[in-house]
Amino acid sequence: MKNKNLFAMDILTVAEINAILFDAHLFSTIYKDWQFPDNRRVANLFFEPSTRTQYSFESAQHQLNCKVTTFNAETSSVQKGETLYDTVKTFEAIGMEALVIRHPQNEYFQELEGKITIPILNGGDGSGNHPTQCLLDLMTIKEEFGQFEGLKVAIVGDIKHSRVASSNLTALEKLGVTTYVSGPKEWSKDLVNYRPLDEIIEEIDVLMLLRIQHERHEDTMQMSKKQYLTAYGLTHERMGKMKPTAIVMHPAPFNRGVEIDGELVEHPQSRIFKQMENGVHVRKAVLKRAFGYEFPDTESVND
Amino acid sequence: MKNKNLFAMDILTVAEINAILFDAHLFSTIYKDWQFPDNRRVANLFFEPSTRTQYSFESAQHQLNCKVTTFNAETSSVQKGETLYDTVKTFEAIGMEALVIRHPQNEYFQELEGKITIPILNGGDGSGNHPTQCLLDLMTIKEEFGQFEGLKVAIVGDIKHSRVASSNLTALEKLGVTTYVSGPKEWSKDLVNYRPLDEIIEEIDVLMLLRIQHERHEDTMQMSKKQYLTAYGLTHERMGKMKPTAIVMHPAPFNRGVEIDGELVEHPQSRIFKQMENGVHVRKAVLKRAFGYEFPDTESVND
Amino acid sequence: MKNKNLFAMDILTVAEINAILFDAHLFSTIYKDWQFPDNRRVANLFFEPSTRTQYSFESAQHQLNCKVTTFNAETSSVQKGETLYDTVKTFEAIGMEALVIRHPQNEYFQELEGKITIPILNGGDGSGNHPTQCLLDLMTIKEEFGQFEGLKVAIVGDIKHSRVASSNLTALEKLGVTTYVSGPKEWSKDLVNYRPLDEIIEEIDVLMLLRIQHERHEDTMQMSKKQYLTAYGLTHERMGKMKPTAIVMHPAPFNRGVEIDGELVEHPQSRIFKQMENGVHVRKAVLKRAFGYEFPDTESVND
Repeated sequence: MKNKNLFAMDILTVAEINAILFDAHLFSTIYKDWQFPDNRRVANLFFEPSTRTQYSFESAQHQLNCKVTTFNAETSSVQKGETLYDTVKTFEAIGMEALVIRHPQNEYFQELEGKITIPILNGGDGSGNHPTQCLLDLMTIKEEFGQFEGLKVAIVGDIKHSRVASSNLTALEKLGVTTYVSGPKEWSKDLVNYRPLDEIIEEIDVLMLLRIQHERHEDTMQMSKKQYLTAYGLTHERMGKMKPTAIVMHPAPFNRGVEIDGELVEHPQSRIFKQMENGVHVRKAVLKRAFGYEFPDTESVND
Repeated sequence: MKNKNLFAMDILTVAEINAILFDAHLFSTIYKDWQFPDNRRVANLFFEPSTRTQYSFESAQHQLNCKVTTFNAETSSVQKGETLYDTVKTFEAIGMEALVIRHPQNEYFQELEGKITIPILNGGDGSGNHPTQCLLDLMTIKEEFGQFEGLKVAIVGDIKHSRVASSNLTALEKLGVTTYVSGPKEWSKDLVNYRPLDEIIEEIDVLMLLRIQHERHEDTMQMSKKQYLTAYGLTHERMGKMKPTAIVMHPAPFNRGVEIDGELVEHPQSRIFKQMENGVHVRKAVLKRAFGYEFPDTESVND
Repeated sequence: MKNKNLFAMDILTVAEINAILFDAHLFSTIYKDWQFPDNRRVANLFFEPSTRTQYSFESAQHQLNCKVTTFNAETSSVQKGETLYDTVKTFEAIGMEALVIRHPQNEYFQELEGKITIPILNGGDGSGNHPTQCLLDLMTIKEEFGQFEGLKVAIVGDIKHSRVASSNLTALEKLGVTTYVSGPKEWSKDLVNYRPLDEIIEEIDVLMLLRIQHERHEDTMQMSKKQYLTAYGLTHERMGKMKPTAIVMHPAPFNRGVEIDGELVEHPQSRIFKQMENGVHVRKAVLKRAFGYEFPDTESVND
């Protein structure tokens, strides 16, 4: 049997990525209302705060007619010092059929792999992986340009601490995209592909802004919000230099006036809220994959 | 298309109020088990603690066969400084079809109006509006007396800080009710219609007690609980002076022994728990209105 | 009408216990997928943190096709000083059809009995009762041995503060089991049936380990985790002395390396995760009992 877990992008083949993106596309078009034939019980275990990921998964689950259990780490036995493995094993024992997990520990799933029989979907681990965020970014790019080959994508911001950046860089390169990183130099991993934003702003197809994670490194950043915006953020001026076909992305939550001028969040070339929409389609696709369901063939749908 | 939002009582016409109350009445009688023909996804965004409003909406949503998402502001990206607009827009983007919002900021909905396409139902804003509380109060009064015209209603307590009081005063006057305010003078807005409780206790039809909101003004109140009860609360003595047809109401949570003698909470003339029941009917009615559903006509129901 | 509440084991007759266990057995075998014919609205009111009990009840409710409301005491009006009775009465008023309650106060249900008309299932009260935990323990024992009569069960740990221990001792004795208590002497209630573990380890059929509740009495325990394990816990050495047919149980969450050597949690003779599975079957059985539903007869099932 195939492994139906989704831990990280780097263990997916290009074919697997494309299969997920294709299913997500079908969910966004002809299978908008398609549901799992059975009520499946899914638990969302969030050991870190989240809005988009948690509620996007929940919306996907509701749309697929799952029974959704939300585990709140703050009001649970985790306070009593239970290990992650024991908590996860508990949710399997009480009849959950799939789990979505976000956890602050990098690669938390290593200690679970092979020991839990129900599928686990990674909703973000520490500063490591965030595969569904990556997949929704890929879907948004593919929707826009039809293909990946030959595109130029710049990721700007805290590359070092961002699970979004590392998932995306891995995947985009695998798919034939030319990637640049930009933003404060001390935040890029090793300056590989580093380019000042103003040198590339006119030629890139996709500008992916990352959130300034104040909570992860308040000290290292010694500039005001305004200074960050001017030096590395999306200003009206830079927006004006971008190709008319180019798009702006951000995993959100965004800081208006820091990574992006607040007035540009809903600019016609911004896909920020479109990304959130696509997040639901992508999560429906990985849930479908986890349970091994197939769409009915189109013929019978049209009957 | 009609606006299906519900922000405040003062933007509803008398005809609209009566239409909602009539639907609520039908939900409490012949359409008890009627459900939406589709599963609609509704999110409850509570940025302030609540029991009655949140769970009453949730019960209404479950009874109507909605898929319910509960947003817990404490464990979310709101902690990361996201604006209300961005949070609300996110819930729209991920596929929610209606939102119930409670927020501490007065008239928070002003910044959302016209920018969000899904209906928003106000579950309470700051010390401003609380329209579903008002509607359930109206329903309780109408159930009891059959009409509003000519009734005398006294609202007692912290008029100035109460969203219940201001919503109710606006609506009751619109409906032809004579209203009085009572309680500590420094808490009434401007002493308009102020009357000492003992002067009017024998002639009023409805005594609406308000909760002493200790958390909003601990300093200004310099009397013990017992002293408040004696001076402004519902004691056995005052109960005895009320007309036998008069009723007692309270939006709850109530403080036993402060606004009301604990023994009178379930007095035959008290409608406090009846109000909570009616809250579910009223919330079903405003959800029906938000989605624009119609009841099947009675004939086909009887078939 | 029969009382459908479930407050404590000691008010159940042996016949009632056996009826619940039999239903739970049917839920674990031929009625795995059986659901209530109607969507029933159930609220879980947890005034204390819990993982297993809360989510196990929720899983049971989802499997039975209930509409589940989760009440989070931390973000509610309880903060405003509402009494338990008023909170519970509120949930009844807004249309809940059954309640599961966990509360830190011993026998909190005394103040509710006879005043609330919907069934209440006790999810644990203070250091008193925890009937569904007891029932799942009984189910696990009965599954293993087919009967209770003649078995020897040792309960080891903090007998005095454990709601599990007191519920279990009452029930096991009623069912004809010989019970021993062990662990630190100062934690046993009155030394009735107290036996050092090493004296009985070879003859017992069931070893029920209890969690060391650090949060309840940090001071009284003046030994390291390692010392506790060596003196009173399940070590490899003690495991080796147990009868090959004997089983190990723990209500969880367990402390690896304190009550039990971490490597023994999933030993072939351990039933710890099996207990969690049985918890769902037992909770389905008590929910079925609360609503008075009957299984369809097997014949019509087989049709």
